[in-house]
Amino acid sequence: MARSKAVSGFPEWLPEGRMVERQVLDALRRVFELHSYVEIETRAVEPLGDLLRKGETSKEVYVLGRLQDEGASFSDDTLALHFDLTVPLARYVLGNAGRLDFPFKRCQIQKVWRGERPQQGRFREFTQADVDVIGRDTLPFTYEVEVAAVMAEALRALPIGQVRLSVNNRKVCEAFYRGLGLTDVESVLRWIDKLAKIGPVLVGEGLESSGLTPAQSRACLELASLNADDDGITALVSGLASRLGVGSALLETGLSELGELMLSLAEDAPGVARADLSVARGLDYYTGSVYETTLIGAPELGSICSGGRYDNLVSSGKQVFPGVGLSIGVTRLVSHMLGSVGVSRSVPACVWIAVVDEEHRSESRTVARALRARGIPCDVSPNAAKYGKQIAAADRRGIPFVWFPGEDGEADQVKDIRSGEQVEASSESWSPPDGDLVPGLVGV
Amino acid sequence: MARSKAVSGFPEWLPEGRMVERQVLDALRRVFELHSYVEIETRAVEPLGDLLRKGETSKEVYVLGRLQDEGASFSDDTLALHFDLTVPLARYVLGNAGRLDFPFKRCQIQKVWRGERPQQGRFREFTQADVDVIGRDTLPFTYEVEVAAVMAEALRALPIGQVRLSVNNRKVCEAFYRGLGLTDVESVLRWIDKLAKIGPVLVGEGLESSGLTPAQSRACLELASLNADDDGITALVSGLASRLGVGSALLETGLSELGELMLSLAEDAPGVARADLSVARGLDYYTGSVYETTLIGAPELGSICSGGRYDNLVSSGKQVFPGVGLSIGVTRLVSHMLGSVGVSRSVPACVWIAVVDEEHRSESRTVARALRARGIPCDVSPNAAKYGKQIAAADRRGIPFVWFPGEDGEADQVKDIRSGEQVEASSESWSPPDGDLVPGLVGV
Repeated sequence: MARSKAVSGFPEWLPEGRMVERQVLDALRRVFELHSYVEIETRAVEPLGDLLRKGETSKEVYVLGRLQDEGASFSDDTLALHFDLTVPLARYVLGNAGRLDFPFKRCQIQKVWRGERPQQGRFREFTQADVDVIGRDTLPFTYEVEVAAVMAEALRALPIGQVRLSVNNRKVCEAFYRGLGLTDVESVLRWIDKLAKIGPVLVGEGLESSGLTPAQSRACLELASLNADDDGITALVSGLASRLGVGSALLETGLSELGELMLSLAEDAPGVARADLSVARGLDYYTGSVYETTLIGAPELGSICSGGRYDNLVSSGKQVFPGVGLSIGVTRLVSHMLGSVGVSRSVPACVWIAVVDEEHRSESRTVARALRARGIPCDVSPNAAKYGKQIAAADRRGIPFVWFPGEDGEADQVKDIRSGEQVEASSESWSPPDGDLVPGLVGV
Repeated sequence: MARSKAVSGFPEWLPEGRMVERQVLDALRRVFELHSYVEIETRAVEPLGDLLRKGETSKEVYVLGRLQDEGASFSDDTLALHFDLTVPLARYVLGNAGRLDFPFKRCQIQKVWRGERPQQGRFREFTQADVDVIGRDTLPFTYEVEVAAVMAEALRALPIGQVRLSVNNRKVCEAFYRGLGLTDVESVLRWIDKLAKIGPVLVGEGLESSGLTPAQSRACLELASLNADDDGITALVSGLASRLGVGSALLETGLSELGELMLSLAEDAPGVARADLSVARGLDYYTGSVYETTLIGAPELGSICSGGRYDNLVSSGKQVFPGVGLSIGVTRLVSHMLGSVGVSRSVPACVWIAVVDEEHRSESRTVARALRARGIPCDVSPNAAKYGKQIAAADRRGIPFVWFPGEDGEADQVKDIRSGEQVEASSESWSPPDGDLVPGLVGV
């Protein structure tokens, strides 16, 4: 086949980039599993009707057709690629409710697709890493702490510098807005969600244009301006609320949850969480804690890990399955990391086994078998070129060791290319230093 | 959202099934990396034109459209889901040739999609695990041995019983057919490929219907009937060829390669390979060794791992990139395995940490942090029910240990639910037996 061009919005990494991504995915999965999240995968497609019921996203859906369907129109049963892992999770839980243990703690690391016009930093195909906990009938608040702690721990396992996990509680916002006499809570949240982008002046104008009085608009902005690094946030919000004569049982519940979240996260992930009343999150199905995560060194990247509590997303009619979860945008994160992180070598092999001549290739393959049987990744030279050339081939790939099978009964030798040191060695006993066994992440 | 029905041909596993699949994928990747295959992923889509150029498969392609494209017609640039990982590899190698080291050894484990009508054992979405080696200009024969040895080792790492790797060489078949005076080699191969399905009588009739004389047809069937468990295959084929007066340099090369493949595989994967001249493989781009793999205990499953050498698939016009590779159909294999293999527990946790009462949940979370910091997966009870109920919750998930935080300064205790044995323990030093740390595969 002939060379074909890149497809905008569908990123692909060179092998070194994929090795970085692989280490990220492995590190995330390891943390998820330490917390006993069970991994599932769901099919890449959902019926279009199920996806569209979520609204707003309709323009972003990729619909599937077969060649013979050219020119066909779409129906609810038409298959389309999933655009997140939450809709599929809801469907999976409902379909398998009788066979799952609740609370059902699952992680899911898969590609998702969005048919939007590609722009800087936006991908049409990307990998998400999600954790969610789904309860049957009820879901204890403790999981609103747990999922945040898991993600904080997972992100801290990556070489991405400090992260900030900003948290808020929908109950606080809703109770506050209702206390001000507002009824269209979602509309207010949508404007508050724009704060970081367009600033308080334009948000205030927007709120007024949607029917708020200047005083109401100011109060909403004042609430959004509150933040704290500990559970002192509850006193700040209470103070503002009582000053404005706003108060309700819902507000108390929300504040108590927000305070507990901050206290617990101080134990589980010290120095990471900030309570921030401007965190609104676009999605309207959140009903409790909401989360956003930024890299301290790269705020321009936006939120790399977001989510929240949702009480009504998953329901069979008879039964309700409240949930809470967060999602990491892995592709965007890796794309950012590749600016400063690489791998110590471009292939898995730790040892490059030289070939004396083609008649003795079998000896080199025997060495390789012995090393692999002891878990040491290695590769055999494709040719029997002069040793200088074989060493150069290993060096080009960043492989640290070259192995020379002994000729005529002599002992084998292994050379550390970096130091030049060469010693006698047996494939039955020699091991590389621990740090050299597999490729590691390095600064670039 | 409401419950929605399964989509035929798009399999999904319950958590336990996914854990089996995960262990399969991890085992495969580990073997691939021990042999220094670097993992890549390619985008899920290719331009339709590139996919159709492969012919035959056109009916199986899923085309992507956006909602606003309803009723649109397709062009070469229309995106479609890849149906294998070989076409994407060819495109990836050509697009990145200047940035890759050759021979380029890559493994790739990804979903592929085929828009065919689903039937028993056929999936429309499934995972493939491929290894390929691509050379620039040339590719030494040794890789035709290596990829087969890697796959034999990978499959033997799985609890699937004995596998048989059947090998053949296209050069032998082509030289033999040409020596009989036949020119349409591909047509003969397509008939021979049907042998296992329809038997020699119908294949013979088919060959004659496509223009072969009865003698030519008999000769082709006779060749296909030859097989051997060692390099004795070369003498068998040579004998038949000289009896029929067939001989050429190409036949000699092919037989020498086939013999060397059998000799080398006897070293790398003793008892696995069989030379079998009936192995034809449907795809017409193979030019050297071809491979098929069956489970001895489940021949009805068909080939679970197939591939071959291809000299002309990847070409930039100026430059050619010969390759060789094999592909495991992971989903079909896992689907089969799930009939006899399960996991020892339904969640990653090795320890279930009981909660005395909600006021002391923090103590349980502290135990969890300490265990996880030492790599022990664990989970904290969602409630502070009576201990009997908490133990039952752990037992239901197959978790082997329950941890009871000490009250009022007493020492913690840990109970092995299976034996009932309960001992004092410290979360700073206690460890489970090695075999209990992570879920293992078990017979069901």
